[in-house]
Amino acid sequence: MAVTRPRLLTPGPVNLHPAALQALTRPQLHHRSPEAAALVRGLRARLAALLASRGEAVLLGGSGTAAMEAVVRALFRPAARVWVPVAGKFAERWVEIARAAGLEPQVTEHPWGAAVGPDDLPPGRIDGALLTHSETSTGVLHPVRSLAAAVRARAPEALVVVDAVTSFLVAELELESWGLDAAVSGSQKGAMSPPGLAFAWLAPRALERLRPSGYYLDLSRELAAQRQGQTAFTPPIQIVEAVHDVLEAAWPQGRDDLARHWAVKAEATARFYARGAELGLRPVPSREEARSPATAAFYLPRGWTSEALSAAFAERGWRVAGGQGPLKGRIFRVSAMGYFTRAELERAYNDFTAVLRRS
Amino acid sequence: MAVTRPRLLTPGPVNLHPAALQALTRPQLHHRSPEAAALVRGLRARLAALLASRGEAVLLGGSGTAAMEAVVRALFRPAARVWVPVAGKFAERWVEIARAAGLEPQVTEHPWGAAVGPDDLPPGRIDGALLTHSETSTGVLHPVRSLAAAVRARAPEALVVVDAVTSFLVAELELESWGLDAAVSGSQKGAMSPPGLAFAWLAPRALERLRPSGYYLDLSRELAAQRQGQTAFTPPIQIVEAVHDVLEAAWPQGRDDLARHWAVKAEATARFYARGAELGLRPVPSREEARSPATAAFYLPRGWTSEALSAAFAERGWRVAGGQGPLKGRIFRVSAMGYFTRAELERAYNDFTAVLRRS
Repeated sequence: MAVTRPRLLTPGPVNLHPAALQALTRPQLHHRSPEAAALVRGLRARLAALLASRGEAVLLGGSGTAAMEAVVRALFRPAARVWVPVAGKFAERWVEIARAAGLEPQVTEHPWGAAVGPDDLPPGRIDGALLTHSETSTGVLHPVRSLAAAVRARAPEALVVVDAVTSFLVAELELESWGLDAAVSGSQKGAMSPPGLAFAWLAPRALERLRPSGYYLDLSRELAAQRQGQTAFTPPIQIVEAVHDVLEAAWPQGRDDLARHWAVKAEATARFYARGAELGLRPVPSREEARSPATAAFYLPRGWTSEALSAAFAERGWRVAGGQGPLKGRIFRVSAMGYFTRAELERAYNDFTAVLRRS
Repeated sequence: MAVTRPRLLTPGPVNLHPAALQALTRPQLHHRSPEAAALVRGLRARLAALLASRGEAVLLGGSGTAAMEAVVRALFRPAARVWVPVAGKFAERWVEIARAAGLEPQVTEHPWGAAVGPDDLPPGRIDGALLTHSETSTGVLHPVRSLAAAVRARAPEALVVVDAVTSFLVAELELESWGLDAAVSGSQKGAMSPPGLAFAWLAPRALERLRPSGYYLDLSRELAAQRQGQTAFTPPIQIVEAVHDVLEAAWPQGRDDLARHWAVKAEATARFYARGAELGLRPVPSREEARSPATAAFYLPRGWTSEALSAAFAERGWRVAGGQGPLKGRIFRVSAMGYFTRAELERAYNDFTAVLRRS
């Protein structure tokens, strides 16, 4: 049966790109077929090119968190000291993953809503850093390029890993030229595809230092298989095809098409902030320069609960996101990361104003 | 664009059930919505009921291998001695996973094509067993019920874990009443859905002994979230919905509908063996009683290479599977595990005969 569902203004999952939806309607593909091998090869090459990397991208069946853990275990030994600046829920996830893998995370705590700066690097020996580019829980874009520079100035051999889950395809990001050794993302964010496929990027320095670790999340095992156009285990092949087809349809020239897209997404998010300013809403990011193009986050205006606000948007056919961790019940988030027609986005802005004008 | 692809006679992935394909065409669902929570709860309850278990099923974003590893790490400590009878590629995978987790697998080796028996249990202390029900690489159904009985007679506290990847929904299987403590499967086999979602079943004894392990594959973390209708991380929600809808459409009465389905699948597979017998093909399972209903496996007749046979089936619009490990290039496999109309299956049998008659 046909099903009506709210359109998603959430920062992932997002409204699907038409090419993704179309890919899902095809007959089941066998992942050991030549057609599947071409998809795996093509997707890996496109992913690496989109981050301007001479390294390699690895696909993993799972969520972005699976790729976060796989990269940590592949690149660091137990007891490694890695800097994790924490100013949101996804940075906290790095800490949890690092601890579960036996690392010794060097955690610096920052206000949720603030951007971390290079001066926040703690003193002492450092073997690496686990950074968050777009912190989805606060709507802050952290300056990972300058953070990486600070880490490398202190410890040239340290490996810098970036959570690009909501920044990939949405904010400017380059791997080696920005001093980054690895990044991770997932299918259900900027790639406008269903959840279920994670990406790990390994720059040449990370490739050299890859070590086997575990089994299902072992990047070295996956890399060996994927260099042959295979995967080590049965991949979520529909989602591989969806992401492949979206990248081809949306950015046929790869990176050359991205700058315009970043501008579109930044503008789309800025318009939510502009509407918020008209309504007197207080943004979560403490400074305008710190706003991520992936999501706009606002404190709930007086008189609104998170549930009431969600219900008011739902009445108009939209789903928005609440807060997480210490911001639960205190903020709401909207995102233009997914696929929208121009008319649909206009409707989103107008409904945003209509709902919140009641405040 | 519309795409023509071979219909799958492979033992996973398989041709999708129409309910799965339909689920994939819906707008993106947010996994934190009440609708998604209902899907997670409904699917978990159905999964447990289909194995006649009073325990719990846990969903994991990943392939069946992800669930294999998650269960091993959740139930056994490093240095645990677990019996792994090996007579095929997927039993070998248990050994690899057990070693990667620091266990001490007690491996017994058996001819590929043979069924393991209770007398094969090796002497000495045992903390558990990692069994394979339907060994997809050989087409053999191992008698896990009697193997479990042997393990429990030796060591009542030992935990018995079963790879039910290709037996779930295809062969008779019960958890507690068969003496089994845990089982794993995946979406792209008997559930006739896309790959990308794994299932782990934990009987009450296993639930009591669950320990946190790792991060993404930590069953205790997932269980805590899934008891609330949530998942710990973003799930492949399209595939959750696909499997949910297939189970509801194909077996609305749950287990009461299964016996007939097992008979249908057993008969469908037996007909491949009957065609093979007419053609003088040698089955891989050494005894007729050992044949799995999930896949029929034959040695390649003289004069055929694996590639030539695959090409001959491909010409008629079918994809078949070759051999794995020591059987690579020596056998081929066909399966009626997926969704087929009656007419389509008849065409498959006739094409099977037509291709192989040339031998």
